[in-house]
Amino acid sequence: MSEVVDRIAPRSTQTVPVGVSARHAHVSDEVLAVLFGKDYELTVYRELFQPGAFAANQMISVVGPRLRAIERVRILGPTRGYNQVELARTDAIYLGVEPPVRDSGDLAGACPVTFIGPKGSIQVDAAIRAARHIHLTHKDVHEMGLDQVDRVRVQVGGEKGVTYDNVRLKIDDSYLPELHLDTDDANAAELVCGDIVTILK
Amino acid sequence: MSEVVDRIAPRSTQTVPVGVSARHAHVSDEVLAVLFGKDYELTVYRELFQPGAFAANQMISVVGPRLRAIERVRILGPTRGYNQVELARTDAIYLGVEPPVRDSGDLAGACPVTFIGPKGSIQVDAAIRAARHIHLTHKDVHEMGLDQVDRVRVQVGGEKGVTYDNVRLKIDDSYLPELHLDTDDANAAELVCGDIVTILK
Repeated sequence: MSEVVDRIAPRSTQTVPVGVSARHAHVSDEVLAVLFGKDYELTVYRELFQPGAFAANQMISVVGPRLRAIERVRILGPTRGYNQVELARTDAIYLGVEPPVRDSGDLAGACPVTFIGPKGSIQVDAAIRAARHIHLTHKDVHEMGLDQVDRVRVQVGGEKGVTYDNVRLKIDDSYLPELHLDTDDANAAELVCGDIVTILK
Repeated sequence: MSEVVDRIAPRSTQTVPVGVSARHAHVSDEVLAVLFGKDYELTVYRELFQPGAFAANQMISVVGPRLRAIERVRILGPTRGYNQVELARTDAIYLGVEPPVRDSGDLAGACPVTFIGPKGSIQVDAAIRAARHIHLTHKDVHEMGLDQVDRVRVQVGGEKGVTYDNVRLKIDDSYLPELHLDTDDANAAELVCGDIVTILK
């Protein structure tokens, strides 16, 4: 695995591959039971880049105060201790909510929306927009000279080039290096998964 | 009018107000006749910031190769000598097209899509993504020290701050100063119409 990572993200030049996060949900066991039935378990549709994470076969609809549904929102497993839907602002405007920008799992001020599954529905304070962030190990951080750094800027070239401010660092030795962006951020800069971008200190 | 502009966009600090362009269409008289009927004329829903431009009451559906429709796409008048739909990349992915980034009116490489109106439909090579651009007068350009400058960068602050590259200058003495962004660009940076942003040389 390290061979692959070295090939696509040479550490010396402070670059990182992009992972585009389309809107998706995390659910607790309790809410999963409401939506899909008692003792229901998520099944793996596709493993994700970060070890242990997977896109589930299960999807839900999400409805907001404008009573419009975003359908087929995929659940990412495993189940969590909380319920969350990560939206791009384009999605949020469609639903009629103004979710705060948060790290995944931080639901302070999250907007109420309704999750709908095949067996039931429930309103949860779940809607956030995910903060831009880079997954790195402590070793990555040290090699990139980013010790003590909280946020970085990330530069993307090309006709639709941008520089993103306030990209947070998420550090865990289980992580593979990857910049996570929502679809608005990615589409603004014409990025797709696997594109390589440059970290600015 | 100049009082308003001076208030929201003081020239000395090289700032400019934002206009967010949601997806919209321009049509020729000939295509308008196909979509809405012979001798049909657009009617004004709302005047736009740029003199003479207006959002029409008339809307169309736009369908691409995935056979999905984006409904209620507003026509901006007056009628043009060409047919064009300006999409954000989020819209383009939904329709299944990969439109080039172009100045409005430059349809080189534009993607074929179907325009649908209440009286008929027609396939046209019409889909582009609009290049980021700033409307300025020659006087604005001179006062901002941007003579001979083709493209600038534009900086937006805040939690979702970004710097946009390759922002083109569109110069005409009838223009009011305004940065035009599509909804992906605007939503990535959490901008709404009338927000003030900074031009970097």
